[in-house]
Amino acid sequence: MMAQPAIALGLPLRLLAEAEGVSAAQVIPDQLVGDYRDLDTLIKVTDGCDVVTFDHEHVPTEHLHALEEAGVACRPGPEALVHAQDKGVMREKLAELGIPCPRNAIVTSLAEVEEFGFPCVLKTTRGGYDGKGVWVVRSAADAEEPLRVVAETAAVNGARLLAEELVDFRRELSAIVARSPSGQAAAYPVVHTLQVDGVCREVIAPAPDLAPELATGAQEIALTIAKELGVTGILAVELFETTDGRVLVNELAMRPHNTGHWTQDGAVTSQFENHLRAVMDLPLGSPAPRAPWTVMVNILGGDAEFPGGGEVGRLYDGYPHALARDPHLRVHLYGKDLRPGRKVGHVNTYGDDLEDCLERARHAAAWFRGDLGNESE
Amino acid sequence: MMAQPAIALGLPLRLLAEAEGVSAAQVIPDQLVGDYRDLDTLIKVTDGCDVVTFDHEHVPTEHLHALEEAGVACRPGPEALVHAQDKGVMREKLAELGIPCPRNAIVTSLAEVEEFGFPCVLKTTRGGYDGKGVWVVRSAADAEEPLRVVAETAAVNGARLLAEELVDFRRELSAIVARSPSGQAAAYPVVHTLQVDGVCREVIAPAPDLAPELATGAQEIALTIAKELGVTGILAVELFETTDGRVLVNELAMRPHNTGHWTQDGAVTSQFENHLRAVMDLPLGSPAPRAPWTVMVNILGGDAEFPGGGEVGRLYDGYPHALARDPHLRVHLYGKDLRPGRKVGHVNTYGDDLEDCLERARHAAAWFRGDLGNESE
Repeated sequence: MMAQPAIALGLPLRLLAEAEGVSAAQVIPDQLVGDYRDLDTLIKVTDGCDVVTFDHEHVPTEHLHALEEAGVACRPGPEALVHAQDKGVMREKLAELGIPCPRNAIVTSLAEVEEFGFPCVLKTTRGGYDGKGVWVVRSAADAEEPLRVVAETAAVNGARLLAEELVDFRRELSAIVARSPSGQAAAYPVVHTLQVDGVCREVIAPAPDLAPELATGAQEIALTIAKELGVTGILAVELFETTDGRVLVNELAMRPHNTGHWTQDGAVTSQFENHLRAVMDLPLGSPAPRAPWTVMVNILGGDAEFPGGGEVGRLYDGYPHALARDPHLRVHLYGKDLRPGRKVGHVNTYGDDLEDCLERARHAAAWFRGDLGNESE
Repeated sequence: MMAQPAIALGLPLRLLAEAEGVSAAQVIPDQLVGDYRDLDTLIKVTDGCDVVTFDHEHVPTEHLHALEEAGVACRPGPEALVHAQDKGVMREKLAELGIPCPRNAIVTSLAEVEEFGFPCVLKTTRGGYDGKGVWVVRSAADAEEPLRVVAETAAVNGARLLAEELVDFRRELSAIVARSPSGQAAAYPVVHTLQVDGVCREVIAPAPDLAPELATGAQEIALTIAKELGVTGILAVELFETTDGRVLVNELAMRPHNTGHWTQDGAVTSQFENHLRAVMDLPLGSPAPRAPWTVMVNILGGDAEFPGGGEVGRLYDGYPHALARDPHLRVHLYGKDLRPGRKVGHVNTYGDDLEDCLERARHAAAWFRGDLGNESE
């Protein structure tokens, strides 16, 4: 999705694709297929590039240091990115900065988990994604799997086990900011994100009925983290709004983020364009919303039994109805094969009436998924 | 610019590029470099495509017929496209349909030009573009060059010479519609276009102070032409608003058009997305404007003496000032080498205040061109 504003701005992209024909490889001509965990591949693909940036956080930190030492401008750089790669490092740094977080501790044994107390959340510090590597733990028995999994992967990826308090939250929020190497920053409106099984389903921008001091507080947290960690590009801060009226930092991402996809159609400047502007150290575009409400709903691959299940081609069968029903609908499909639960696209709606935006976006996403083709539902 | 909505909609594009590294070739991976005047090349590049469409009108009509006979879906098809390729055919058809046009006649000799009367406009019926192939003629001497040029090219491209009345116009307008093979059509607001030396410089959407009956009339003309000619995709109808309060058709284009670039940032659905939807026979998106005013100003290559002249790289030097001055500015650069007068990009501004939009867009375009870097101006 960075390719679209790159076309508009006339910025040539070069891609390291993990396999032939993946989404980005379908739309970026200058590409190399290779493994982002291989330093030689990274050196080859970055040769002659002004700036290197990322659409995930999994490039090994030591390789990023090696690239920087070779004179490649990594944005964000490894000193910043490690906080999005390693939740343990992130929690230690946020504590140091006085940023409000759930109570947390690194644990290395069942005794330490018991000492932390039940219920709690156990997370691998490295390699988790979309709910993977996160366990809600209510008893010693529940803690066995996470202890074992993290012990097994520790040697491979340096993961540790992080215990966090199970937060009693009203809802989840996301605060997205863009920051350039010169220090310019732009804060998008704070949004409400609905997560199901650790996967983002819906985003409402701005978060409805959010107390102004919490909205400002969340933006200040994101701006502080971006500045103090030296982030360049987009920083997404996922937060809990607690039932007792506080915001606590849940996760960080240093790249255009699913909770910012609404900006493609709902903001003056999309998160993808501002990510490019930021890493190029160009002045940032306005993050202001273009409509009172914007709603994003993800399209997830259904089960094979769903009409839209199985083949990517079937997804496109959703177009005639979805586009005819709503001429204002904005559709984004990623050219990915359908797999159950996989994010294969999203829809955006915007307007003056939140309920109308929600109904239109939910209907369209369900239609693409194939849910509405099943008469029994 | 069609690549951007194709990415969003997940539609794979294949490109026939006229040379390596041209604008579209920079952003579309699946490409063949070749000559659009060569039928074998056209057959090769269209093999396996669901639909073939165009970003110019210069593919020879007979080749399009040959493709259609080979079962390739050309949209627009040759029967429609010939009216955008040949101004003589277009004038004859519009007369038949009763569409208001300037008085016109095909002329083959100086005597016939004199009989038509001076002053008049002489146009080559085929191959003209951006003011090329158009002559304002006030005397027999002025008519010599067009008569000679068209006689020379007639054998090559079948061009004839068309004489048209020199219209006393208040301003130029453009009415853009999208139409699908199923017959669905969508009409964008009628815009005011400012042309200098036959080249579009500025567009204001919607056209200010346009009488509602003229606006509706212009849209009806465009919809009628699209339907009667069987156009699929975007049809742009350039019109004169005469000093005595009529609209007359000047030119037709059957592709996304410069006078519709404002829709990228100013309409719910851009002309590029609706062109793709139309040629794929998908339901069209809303052509409604997203702001009271949108202004588009073209960025033309300056002379070599301008700071921005000569090298495409220099164009990008305009970014820091232009983006910092106006965080709401929308910039579109095409990755083209700079040549004096060549369209190398455009900027869009939108908002509630037309004067503000005009000032911001004109300033930015002049800055990119390099005009404002010259202290003596």
